[in-house]
Amino acid sequence: MLTELQRDRFEVILVSPRNPLNIGAAARAMANFGFSRLTVVAPYEKHWREAQSAVGAKELLQNAKVVLDLETAIVDCTLVIGTGTLTYRKAEQPVALLADLPHHIERSLAANGRIALVFGPEKRGLTRKDLSYCHLLAEIPTDTRQPSMNLGQAVAVCLYEIATRTNSTTVLHPAAQTPSATTSSELDRLAGIIDQVMLAAHYSPESMHQANRHELRLFLRRLSLSVRDTRRVLGFFRRVLYRLEENRNRD
Amino acid sequence: MLTELQRDRFEVILVSPRNPLNIGAAARAMANFGFSRLTVVAPYEKHWREAQSAVGAKELLQNAKVVLDLETAIVDCTLVIGTGTLTYRKAEQPVALLADLPHHIERSLAANGRIALVFGPEKRGLTRKDLSYCHLLAEIPTDTRQPSMNLGQAVAVCLYEIATRTNSTTVLHPAAQTPSATTSSELDRLAGIIDQVMLAAHYSPESMHQANRHELRLFLRRLSLSVRDTRRVLGFFRRVLYRLEENRNRD
Repeated sequence: MLTELQRDRFEVILVSPRNPLNIGAAARAMANFGFSRLTVVAPYEKHWREAQSAVGAKELLQNAKVVLDLETAIVDCTLVIGTGTLTYRKAEQPVALLADLPHHIERSLAANGRIALVFGPEKRGLTRKDLSYCHLLAEIPTDTRQPSMNLGQAVAVCLYEIATRTNSTTVLHPAAQTPSATTSSELDRLAGIIDQVMLAAHYSPESMHQANRHELRLFLRRLSLSVRDTRRVLGFFRRVLYRLEENRNRD
Repeated sequence: MLTELQRDRFEVILVSPRNPLNIGAAARAMANFGFSRLTVVAPYEKHWREAQSAVGAKELLQNAKVVLDLETAIVDCTLVIGTGTLTYRKAEQPVALLADLPHHIERSLAANGRIALVFGPEKRGLTRKDLSYCHLLAEIPTDTRQPSMNLGQAVAVCLYEIATRTNSTTVLHPAAQTPSATTSSELDRLAGIIDQVMLAAHYSPESMHQANRHELRLFLRRLSLSVRDTRRVLGFFRRVLYRLEENRNRD
């Protein structure tokens, strides 16, 4: 069982949910299993207002954060877990069965990490871009004849598994304020510098820039960089960029 | 993981569900985790018609059985599991954490049993009488500040746990047509005879008959009687009843 303090290190993130009832149901499942930090990404304004008056978890919905994109929702997070069916999509990062998530979460909590659990919109799920911000995809083992779960029910099943099966003996160091893993925003900063280096070095034709950025996001998340390593790599690429730009100015 | 054949030994039973969306959600969760046998007890006619047109699990809803009371819904079942929060009610039978259900289910499957998973109406849950037909109550470990789950989400969480964690190596004997445990209807038959014996023997004042029947239902379900033992006990009480009535006729 997770402690109160550990549950507070979780962000449940709903990306563009369409149905107000599903938003309410997700919030209620969070309250059922003791989670309280909800972020809604780019909700449909009208549906979001309607959902906030839902019964069962009013306070949680009133305190929810609303942001414009997933990137902003996960800035502080060190482990971003995407959810959804993989029936129609090939995963570009590691996939874990829901039953194995507690293991990954224990490691993240031990490193003072912050964990995001990301759910996509009802019909189409998370976009390829949203998924590229995830370190890990969680798979709920559903029947192949009806793989796609209702949003509120998927949230309930995931939180049940995490709340009841994550071992709380994982040590948290309240003194260590910063997590020892790299946050999503730091990875984005590193990706930004590398992107500039690629441009400055004419690494690839312009038509490839988008695809390169996508691959780079996934690549950096595969590395499990420590905070210290991230800073070193960042410093190195800053230096490289400086040299490249100096050379260009000299031309 | 349960096999197809094992999943077919489960009945999901919704008692007087009120909200058509919840009925649809329950059916969808069943389809997600590969269960197909749904029984609805005394539904609100209008809501039931509405629910049957729900998207996602149409066939399952079309094939659902509709019966008038729980007693009828479980006639063939040898293990009846009630669900719901125990915050407002004291359990009159053993309670198992949801995580321990697979263990009980494995034993029942090994004895060729049929298993019923019973969910009560949204607001008030299962009645005391409905609960007296249950061998076991399942408890979902929810937060004490918001213990009560949404019906559709409770069904999803229970079926997820059962479908993914029940060990399918439990041996099923397809040759043995009858389960080696006693079905609910056989227990009711036995209870009926014992009830007649109590009346014939003037066992208790009339005001106690209802309470006695309730206790008897719970008592018989605690015994885990084999089919053979049930028949013997039934034969014995038939004999006793015959003698009592004979004596009465002689008076």
